[in-house]
Amino acid sequence: MPEVSLAVLGAGTVGSQVLRLLGQRADDLAARAGAQLVVKAVAVRNLATPRPDFIDPALLTTDARAAMAGVDIVVELIGGIEPARSLVLAALAQGSTVVTGNKALLAAHGPELYEAAAASGADLYYEAAVAGAVPVVYAIRESLAGDRITKILGIVNGTTNYILDEMTTKGLDFQEALATAQQLGYAEADPTADVDGHDAAAKAAILSSLAFHTRVASKDVPVTGIRHITAADIAQARADGYVIKLLASAERHADGYDVRVEPRLVPLVHPLASVSGAFNAVVVESEAAGRLMFYGQGAGGAPTASAVLGDVVAAASHKVRGGNAPAELAYADLAALPPSRVRARRCLTIELCDQPGQLAAVANILAGHDISIDRVHQRPLAAQEGQPRAAVTIMTKAATRAALDAAVTELGSLAVRIINVLTVEGND
Amino acid sequence: MPEVSLAVLGAGTVGSQVLRLLGQRADDLAARAGAQLVVKAVAVRNLATPRPDFIDPALLTTDARAAMAGVDIVVELIGGIEPARSLVLAALAQGSTVVTGNKALLAAHGPELYEAAAASGADLYYEAAVAGAVPVVYAIRESLAGDRITKILGIVNGTTNYILDEMTTKGLDFQEALATAQQLGYAEADPTADVDGHDAAAKAAILSSLAFHTRVASKDVPVTGIRHITAADIAQARADGYVIKLLASAERHADGYDVRVEPRLVPLVHPLASVSGAFNAVVVESEAAGRLMFYGQGAGGAPTASAVLGDVVAAASHKVRGGNAPAELAYADLAALPPSRVRARRCLTIELCDQPGQLAAVANILAGHDISIDRVHQRPLAAQEGQPRAAVTIMTKAATRAALDAAVTELGSLAVRIINVLTVEGND
Repeated sequence: MPEVSLAVLGAGTVGSQVLRLLGQRADDLAARAGAQLVVKAVAVRNLATPRPDFIDPALLTTDARAAMAGVDIVVELIGGIEPARSLVLAALAQGSTVVTGNKALLAAHGPELYEAAAASGADLYYEAAVAGAVPVVYAIRESLAGDRITKILGIVNGTTNYILDEMTTKGLDFQEALATAQQLGYAEADPTADVDGHDAAAKAAILSSLAFHTRVASKDVPVTGIRHITAADIAQARADGYVIKLLASAERHADGYDVRVEPRLVPLVHPLASVSGAFNAVVVESEAAGRLMFYGQGAGGAPTASAVLGDVVAAASHKVRGGNAPAELAYADLAALPPSRVRARRCLTIELCDQPGQLAAVANILAGHDISIDRVHQRPLAAQEGQPRAAVTIMTKAATRAALDAAVTELGSLAVRIINVLTVEGND
Repeated sequence: MPEVSLAVLGAGTVGSQVLRLLGQRADDLAARAGAQLVVKAVAVRNLATPRPDFIDPALLTTDARAAMAGVDIVVELIGGIEPARSLVLAALAQGSTVVTGNKALLAAHGPELYEAAAASGADLYYEAAVAGAVPVVYAIRESLAGDRITKILGIVNGTTNYILDEMTTKGLDFQEALATAQQLGYAEADPTADVDGHDAAAKAAILSSLAFHTRVASKDVPVTGIRHITAADIAQARADGYVIKLLASAERHADGYDVRVEPRLVPLVHPLASVSGAFNAVVVESEAAGRLMFYGQGAGGAPTASAVLGDVVAAASHKVRGGNAPAELAYADLAALPPSRVRARRCLTIELCDQPGQLAAVANILAGHDISIDRVHQRPLAAQEGQPRAAVTIMTKAATRAALDAAVTELGSLAVRIINVLTVEGND
């Protein structure tokens, strides 16, 4: 049986699970890849860090470039931009296949990596970069290759999904739910990348690039996080038949695409509504296949290692059989749509004085921007300075994002307080 | 750009959608496959049948062997065993790649087809044979290639899922729900293949062969259909926190596998519980990835055509790039477990005389087979011949299938009527 050589860069949570499975599953993996997978070296930052028994100390080195010299497959599990970017570029330049789970690198420098791969004829795999064990990259690259994807809607960040879920089921406020998530290790001490949506934006960039055959970088993805969501927003949404989820969304329109990350009201009957806890799920809609959903664990050492090993087997199999992995096909001439061309529904929650004319003023501003109202709820709030006050929740019908934004800006000129503005999933 | 030639056998619901998409998506498909896909011939049974405009009449022929002579890829969408089997064998023998959506053929004659493919070095693709547009074959063959699959649980027959869903949401009995399904075209005039579980068994055979790297034929899959399920069973299950689904189930144990199709009580919190209507969903559990779920449309012309075209693009891409499709790897030495070694939980519903000693007799029989009771409900029924009667529902803890079967047989000797015996999903 032929031999395929590997270098593993990084032996942290994911890297050590990859090494464990490469050892424990060796016979199975060889049968499926058609080749013996031989780890030649493992690059780590610090040789003194204690390692599990299944990592052979003789393979460890702090010299990543030496580790990957001449190997067939480089598995990059360092994360972050540098030194990962330089190492991946060097690996591709020497013709090694690269398997990576590095979403930040792909979302920021994808085009550079794809071009380096194309220049040397090397392959680049990155199933583990989006939604962990959930094989959505494969599905979009391969299974739906004969179809046209019209929309992707994903819960791709487990931390924020866990936080919103805790807020929904236990009535917690954001800060309390975040603290719980941090205690349980579901959120980092600095939760910015998760709760402000940047992690989801990197995944949205990768998914939309694949689905629309174009280049979307994470910096091009408009992002709204979940810090401003309150327990009251969630309770009101629930009463209206919705749950609030942080969604990575990518839609194809005739004249362009719309990619963004934002919390949205999702109808309770939508398949994403029941995705709870730290799970990930991605809905893919295409012209022929209709609506598909992929669901599973989006993070964690073993699940992510499973995705990495799926790529390693495919990469090794391609090596020994002489074919190539599917090329990155950025052949489509599709640009981002301006907000004046994308339609959405909004749910506005406004605090106002409970006196005649106030609601009429709000309704007039919406009408002035050609925005129809779908439903309205009003509930009394505690009086302030003797003034009776009320919270009004207005769900609009679909209107352009530009009109919705302009209306919200104009509402700011009234003597009202805008508590929250959320997009509603679905245009009907 | 190189050219890849195709013959399409069959131009029915799926075949005509495949031809439509091959025409409308030609440029897209060529970009992804790296080759122009050229349909050389379309084999049909009757030239006089009216066809949609997008099918070029000049391509039609009733001679399937002539149609496929010398082509690169044969797309078999005739269905059934013969002539499909002979044609697929001939195509593989001449070295053509075969793409098929024929579950019955694969489940009955899979080994013969795999061997014919191996003998000539030809490729065999069959994503469309299981769960329509849902790319679960791909996920198991490719994405999870580095992992070890421990369990597959699928709703793979839309007809029975629709019927059970109608029974659940509208309280209909089986015959009423079947009649509705037939009126709407979701069930055939002869619904046997669906409602008796044979269609699901064919898919279970294909999925378990792939997942366990062994050969499972549909005749080896024990099958129970849904004809005996009543509205009362469903209502009682719901009250206990379960919904009844027809499941294709495949489990790997240390010393063998257990594959079967049967209606089961599924906990309402299980991701399969909320899969409604004619949708399909497959849960795949593996050691590293944990639980994944794939969801989508399991039937219909366009969704199935999407899966066929995904295979066609992969097949064409492999042709022009010189590599091979993944081989069928039946290297595992795993046999079916006898029921004495497989554990399950059961839900028994029994009608008995409402008098002292009756429930004790039932409980004694269960205890005699070492079966523990998890919970019991008793509800009064109308008296018969002056005798008060009751229906008792007993949910057992996990026991071997052999013990459960023996206990049910022994219960038959009491003066009770066994209304229903259902397996409960989950062993805890």
